[in-house]
Amino acid sequence: MPATMLAVVKPARRAGAEIRDVKVPSFGPNDVLVKVKVASICGTDLHIYDWDAWAQKRIHPPLIPGHEFCGTVTAAGSEVTTVKEGDFVSAEMHVACGKCFQCRIGESHICQNVKIIGIDADGAFAEYVRIPESNIWKIDPAIPADYASVLDPLGNAVHTVLAGEVAAKTVAIVGCGPIGLFSIAVARAVGAAQVFAIEINEHRAELARKMKADYVLNPAKEDVKKTVFEATGGVGVDVVLEMSGKTPGIRLGFDILRLGGRVSLLGIPSKPVELNFAEDLIFKGATVQGINGRLMYKTWYQMQALLKNGKLDLSPVITDRISMRDFDRGVERLKSGQASKILLYPNGVK
Amino acid sequence: MPATMLAVVKPARRAGAEIRDVKVPSFGPNDVLVKVKVASICGTDLHIYDWDAWAQKRIHPPLIPGHEFCGTVTAAGSEVTTVKEGDFVSAEMHVACGKCFQCRIGESHICQNVKIIGIDADGAFAEYVRIPESNIWKIDPAIPADYASVLDPLGNAVHTVLAGEVAAKTVAIVGCGPIGLFSIAVARAVGAAQVFAIEINEHRAELARKMKADYVLNPAKEDVKKTVFEATGGVGVDVVLEMSGKTPGIRLGFDILRLGGRVSLLGIPSKPVELNFAEDLIFKGATVQGINGRLMYKTWYQMQALLKNGKLDLSPVITDRISMRDFDRGVERLKSGQASKILLYPNGVK
Amino acid sequence: MPATMLAVVKPARRAGAEIRDVKVPSFGPNDVLVKVKVASICGTDLHIYDWDAWAQKRIHPPLIPGHEFCGTVTAAGSEVTTVKEGDFVSAEMHVACGKCFQCRIGESHICQNVKIIGIDADGAFAEYVRIPESNIWKIDPAIPADYASVLDPLGNAVHTVLAGEVAAKTVAIVGCGPIGLFSIAVARAVGAAQVFAIEINEHRAELARKMKADYVLNPAKEDVKKTVFEATGGVGVDVVLEMSGKTPGIRLGFDILRLGGRVSLLGIPSKPVELNFAEDLIFKGATVQGINGRLMYKTWYQMQALLKNGKLDLSPVITDRISMRDFDRGVERLKSGQASKILLYPNGVK
Amino acid sequence: MPATMLAVVKPARRAGAEIRDVKVPSFGPNDVLVKVKVASICGTDLHIYDWDAWAQKRIHPPLIPGHEFCGTVTAAGSEVTTVKEGDFVSAEMHVACGKCFQCRIGESHICQNVKIIGIDADGAFAEYVRIPESNIWKIDPAIPADYASVLDPLGNAVHTVLAGEVAAKTVAIVGCGPIGLFSIAVARAVGAAQVFAIEINEHRAELARKMKADYVLNPAKEDVKKTVFEATGGVGVDVVLEMSGKTPGIRLGFDILRLGGRVSLLGIPSKPVELNFAEDLIFKGATVQGINGRLMYKTWYQMQALLKNGKLDLSPVITDRISMRDFDRGVERLKSGQASKILLYPNGVK
Repeated sequence: MPATMLAVVKPARRAGAEIRDVKVPSFGPNDVLVKVKVASICGTDLHIYDWDAWAQKRIHPPLIPGHEFCGTVTAAGSEVTTVKEGDFVSAEMHVACGKCFQCRIGESHICQNVKIIGIDADGAFAEYVRIPESNIWKIDPAIPADYASVLDPLGNAVHTVLAGEVAAKTVAIVGCGPIGLFSIAVARAVGAAQVFAIEINEHRAELARKMKADYVLNPAKEDVKKTVFEATGGVGVDVVLEMSGKTPGIRLGFDILRLGGRVSLLGIPSKPVELNFAEDLIFKGATVQGINGRLMYKTWYQMQALLKNGKLDLSPVITDRISMRDFDRGVERLKSGQASKILLYPNGVK
Repeated sequence: MPATMLAVVKPARRAGAEIRDVKVPSFGPNDVLVKVKVASICGTDLHIYDWDAWAQKRIHPPLIPGHEFCGTVTAAGSEVTTVKEGDFVSAEMHVACGKCFQCRIGESHICQNVKIIGIDADGAFAEYVRIPESNIWKIDPAIPADYASVLDPLGNAVHTVLAGEVAAKTVAIVGCGPIGLFSIAVARAVGAAQVFAIEINEHRAELARKMKADYVLNPAKEDVKKTVFEATGGVGVDVVLEMSGKTPGIRLGFDILRLGGRVSLLGIPSKPVELNFAEDLIFKGATVQGINGRLMYKTWYQMQALLKNGKLDLSPVITDRISMRDFDRGVERLKSGQASKILLYPNGVK
Repeated sequence: MPATMLAVVKPARRAGAEIRDVKVPSFGPNDVLVKVKVASICGTDLHIYDWDAWAQKRIHPPLIPGHEFCGTVTAAGSEVTTVKEGDFVSAEMHVACGKCFQCRIGESHICQNVKIIGIDADGAFAEYVRIPESNIWKIDPAIPADYASVLDPLGNAVHTVLAGEVAAKTVAIVGCGPIGLFSIAVARAVGAAQVFAIEINEHRAELARKMKADYVLNPAKEDVKKTVFEATGGVGVDVVLEMSGKTPGIRLGFDILRLGGRVSLLGIPSKPVELNFAEDLIFKGATVQGINGRLMYKTWYQMQALLKNGKLDLSPVITDRISMRDFDRGVERLKSGQASKILLYPNGVK
Repeated sequence: MPATMLAVVKPARRAGAEIRDVKVPSFGPNDVLVKVKVASICGTDLHIYDWDAWAQKRIHPPLIPGHEFCGTVTAAGSEVTTVKEGDFVSAEMHVACGKCFQCRIGESHICQNVKIIGIDADGAFAEYVRIPESNIWKIDPAIPADYASVLDPLGNAVHTVLAGEVAAKTVAIVGCGPIGLFSIAVARAVGAAQVFAIEINEHRAELARKMKADYVLNPAKEDVKKTVFEATGGVGVDVVLEMSGKTPGIRLGFDILRLGGRVSLLGIPSKPVELNFAEDLIFKGATVQGINGRLMYKTWYQMQALLKNGKLDLSPVITDRISMRDFDRGVERLKSGQASKILLYPNGVK
């Protein structure tokens, strides 16, 4: 194993990132060192790059970002028993404390003391990343390597879709970033009656069509509520998956929801949201869920099962493949609104 | 049976009400005519009295209001089989259509075409009221008559408390009007670990103490969040029952909620609510429920069971007993904030 | 409308049936008279035909059997509002009382006083059948007419499959009669990870393969438990749908179940079952469900949604189409074990 | 700390036990050494003592039995962070592997590789016991020390009662050993409508009366089904908690269950059970649950909450307090059927 490695580094409390050589991480008896094969860029990485208000509060440079990846186990600590050198793996990057109330009742995805690798500790935009054994996920050989690098956001989608009944139900997905697009595939795979994808950006809308949403609707151009109510016999949709994180998207979601429906909120609004609680939530008898991360590790088993049975075609979402050295370019591509999920290769695209 | 009866009547599209003689209602083959023994005044009746924006939109005078009552069956239509003259009854006043999607899947409490007796049709502030057999609820003889007149709001409380797990959980009730006060009793009866009652009005707070809330907290005078977190070991409450319908109450509810907790919203805000969805709902992994009416008729069986086993002491909530002729005075008492549930007797207090 | 019609009649308390002319049913103000287009034969009809112990206890001849069908509304009673002449319909043949505890809490599929049309009242093996409006189900035009005649057993399958989580779960179906075969299609459509079909009869096993079960296993010929545990990584299946009604099938189901799994029992054993409750149920932390009929009418909406999105290919299950006059032959075909679902045409196969 | 300690030891593969001096356990970096204050005897300990078929298969002498206890932390390993010397604690004695499928999806109470301290490793019938930190449960100071020694069986009761809805429901408890008796208290505390305790042994029945069951019924002397149906308005009970582990008890439980009710099985039958699946389970639309151990650690939080709010009076169940040296006598008392929960003191009763 080399002493140094290439990595994307947030060097200081300012916008931007650098590509530089850093030390390969050391690892303890319960850790696993993974050689990164492919990583992928998340919207969170853009916040870190741009050094926005959230990043200024949360991030302590220098930091290697990156929390979506797959790779091969290079070394394992002395206490590690469940993986060995050469295993192909990904990881749950939310490291739960295991000792707080939420962890002890089986809700470690909302651990009070969670640390996220790639945000609170050095992440996967590097040749090697250190992961605690507890968080390692072995990849089933039947799963394509490309998909193995996006299990984190796919897990968000699976967690959100399966947070309630969805079989034989009508589902609207508001916002078609990568997680929204993945959700179309997941909802279809688990028997949604109809999938409505709602998106303003035309590039994303086109991807939603490729994901085979039954309806792709643009609220800037058409009367989405009218279409949805006509298509649902005047009832409205059973389930809304909110992935835009924007006030108009959230309001539209509630507006098209049927009486007694479910709204699962995954998109993170950057400011408070004003909503007509009386009409949109209370009289509707709606159920609203805040969705966070992935269930540890129920969601991972669900992903594995869905990927193994081959029903998830995620290929349209992966729009770009670049070398890690071109990280800046990847950021620009994402900001252009013309890319969805960008795969990053530490040693050049393969 | 007499031809006419005394009733509280909303005579026209303006504030106020009149006490006058009107015709005893006719009834069809599937209807039951009930001689009202006791009715009680709800906040909704104040909206009708005051002729506020909601009332102007919903109410079509002339109307006899009143949707909380008990009484004795005086006559039953030819098709009626489940009750007979002399039975002591109350009724679910939400009359569901039975034919819409929600009704057909067992969610008739959020029927698309619901009509509410006392709002959309003549109600119980009268000597007699007509009720469809389907909506009649026979009163178990073990249940005190006073309590039989407040099953409608008690049902709201039972529906809200039991809309999720509550045994061995910490529960905060925001807003201590009659339904909030009832909820204290219900939460205690079903094994809540601790009950926090939150109320600004001192008269209501005093009633909350009489209902034996473990903590009665006044956000105008003390740091409610601090007290709640200290009392819950730094975790926050498992369950918030929002019954104030006010933005500060709703926000406080989310603020004291634990990660992964439940917020059940019953209080109806009169205007849109601005909430920090990111911090208060999504990162918290919260579940939020809009609560409407009572489950038909699961909630009624639950009420019956809880009242029969004698664990609900509702007596502090019933602060006034007046003659129906004194309806105006009852309205004034409620507006003063010094009364909670007021019982109304058609033929004088007995 | 003619005064008489052709019907299959159980004339007396003995085995067999007759084809004869009988009076077209009269109907009341809340009834609908349906001209039968296609009916289909259920195992229950064989019990009635053979006059076995169950039939001797339950059936009161003369009776027209038949509870699976579709057809066209010919006439509707004066109070009927939701269907009209010419509508294409099927029906839920379990007529719930609407007044018992179960009906009032939304569990009318286990009504204490249920009457089944075709068992307790004249059924659909005739040119016309009378159905109460409440039980009529309008057929969405997107649904093939053949499938409309088998909604009753398809509903059993949908109710059983969806009685718990199934997306991304492994599912074993024990017994591949028509409902078991339908369940394969439903489980696949709602995202089951793997479907194991278990069947001894080779004809049925062949149909299970046509329904695209991932594994079709014959316990008479192979070590089913070994195969299932190997295919599930040593865990066992998440869900067992028991549709054989035989003791060995039930035991095998529990044997291949994972710790914490679900067993949903639909097949009706004709005698008591001996099971190792300690090992198979309690230590396993299993959940066992008795499944009855179809949820009114949630299951019907689910069926409609699944059929409309075109993901259910039921065609292999429909093995025979015969004239109603050939009912005896249909019975023989079913007893041979070489037929699955047989469609019956009142006026000759079309 | 002394080098040796007093302990109850199963010395060899034969009936009986010995009281002798053994070495105080060593402990690793993640272990806690607890000085036992009070232990209590479980039915399982009788099986070990009697060396029955189950014990012969499972137990590897020499072994110190005992899995119900409380005590004080005497020493903690170097990695231990959540408890310290002097803390008053009990422990979950099921040590889950943390790595199997069940553990990883939050069902560690049914871990595939569970080891039970006191069964698979030396237990608490000794002056000191070694416990992994993960399994330690700190005792809230508000909880009486006596109760702290019976959290294991109380946890079985809490897990069983709260495995489904119980508020405002009728509950029958079949078998009134210690866990059955605890269940009466728990069911009452969480708002059960009525509690029926069913027991043949008169001593246990008397204890059930002291626990304030609404009905205590003896199937050897009276028509239990008749009484239950009369008391439930002809409906049957909503919930059956089966704690006898006997075939007649199980059958009676199903017999008095309402259509759509829940049966939770905790008692372990020593041989297969024959049940009328058709009538008792399938047509009833019943849900049956196998219950195992306690949820880690949701059940523990629930216990803590219920004990802290003071609603559980467990005192009638604790019938005997003896010195650990008198273990043989304790076994005899239990076998006599005249004792329920026996507390064992390592250094004499205090």
